[in-house]
Amino acid sequence: MEAITATNRTRVIRHAERGVYDREQIHAILDEAYVCHVGFAIDGQPYVIPTAYGRSGDQIYIHGSAASRMLRSLSQGVAVCVTVTLVDGFVLARAAFRHSMNYRSVVVLGTARQVTDPAEKMEALRCFTNHVVGDRWEEVRQPNETEMRSTSVLALPLDEASAKVRSGPPLDLEDDWSWPVWAGVVPLRTQLGEPVPDSHVSPGVPMVDKRRFTR
Amino acid sequence: MEAITATNRTRVIRHAERGVYDREQIHAILDEAYVCHVGFAIDGQPYVIPTAYGRSGDQIYIHGSAASRMLRSLSQGVAVCVTVTLVDGFVLARAAFRHSMNYRSVVVLGTARQVTDPAEKMEALRCFTNHVVGDRWEEVRQPNETEMRSTSVLALPLDEASAKVRSGPPLDLEDDWSWPVWAGVVPLRTQLGEPVPDSHVSPGVPMVDKRRFTR
Repeated sequence: MEAITATNRTRVIRHAERGVYDREQIHAILDEAYVCHVGFAIDGQPYVIPTAYGRSGDQIYIHGSAASRMLRSLSQGVAVCVTVTLVDGFVLARAAFRHSMNYRSVVVLGTARQVTDPAEKMEALRCFTNHVVGDRWEEVRQPNETEMRSTSVLALPLDEASAKVRSGPPLDLEDDWSWPVWAGVVPLRTQLGEPVPDSHVSPGVPMVDKRRFTR
Repeated sequence: MEAITATNRTRVIRHAERGVYDREQIHAILDEAYVCHVGFAIDGQPYVIPTAYGRSGDQIYIHGSAASRMLRSLSQGVAVCVTVTLVDGFVLARAAFRHSMNYRSVVVLGTARQVTDPAEKMEALRCFTNHVVGDRWEEVRQPNETEMRSTSVLALPLDEASAKVRSGPPLDLEDDWSWPVWAGVVPLRTQLGEPVPDSHVSPGVPMVDKRRFTR
């Protein structure tokens, strides 16, 4: 896959060595996370709203419901920024200034388009559902017309996007190496707990298999 | 503590019953998370940047370095939105439309102020450090003048803020209860892995105690 061309708006400037423009790596980060933060501005005031999303090829679909303020003015074509962040660990250094985090983040800029075509909208909803649990869409009751009408979906192409990745140990100065404190990385992992059934699960229906979660 | 007064910009409209304006709950969410997403707009284009932060009373401090694009125009007073999100679980329903997540999020709106007073800046850096590991600041080498100069810190008051919280089981319609698929909540937890020391830890220095992490 071709790399994404950096623009003046997406090129990583601070710690340029952490910039990633490779499409496969950007896709992998988007596929591993499950919440994005959508930024948009109304009358000069920015808003950042967390919401679910899914990826299909070089496009991400955003659940418009969470961004209903934005949707009011969307017909005018609203510039958005969609950011996805995975935190991999705390980086503890000997100097306060050198403390950091290991992370992988993706920033996508562009103009969100409202998805109105019924087939594309259905595909976007399939993406949302299967983004969390593989093949979930295929086993649940799919949306009826009323539900389709009350769901808003936005599409954003992965045209102007970049990732930023930090990994590895702290970068203390040699002068600080003898400072008598522990330094290194404390990894951070997202783990699934024991599934809690609701009170209507029919007898004989097996618990969801945790291996189906796509992370 | 007094509740925060909702404004037209922070009042939760969709699922109003999920809106939380209680100061203690807002503080608790801010204290448990460790990455915020800062939104700001330049020439009408919104940007959303993940960055570290800390809270001190009714104020949050943001690491300005991550928002260097923003800082360029900060002297003009830039409107920002700072959003913090904790995902507590995946909510699996029988209907695709009823799938959701359990989460706790905080949205803070306002104008970020650059912290220039040396004592306040030092206090902000202490907040950042101890936000991740309790009392870490007290044991590491504190910033020297060069490091202080190359760190930018922004302050944002918790004046215009609200939280949104979803918890509990899926809300399937009664007609769907017999659908033969598992439904319920799969909790999501952030767990610390085994600390990985860097290659300069002095002999006899004990590993950081995981109980000191503030989550």
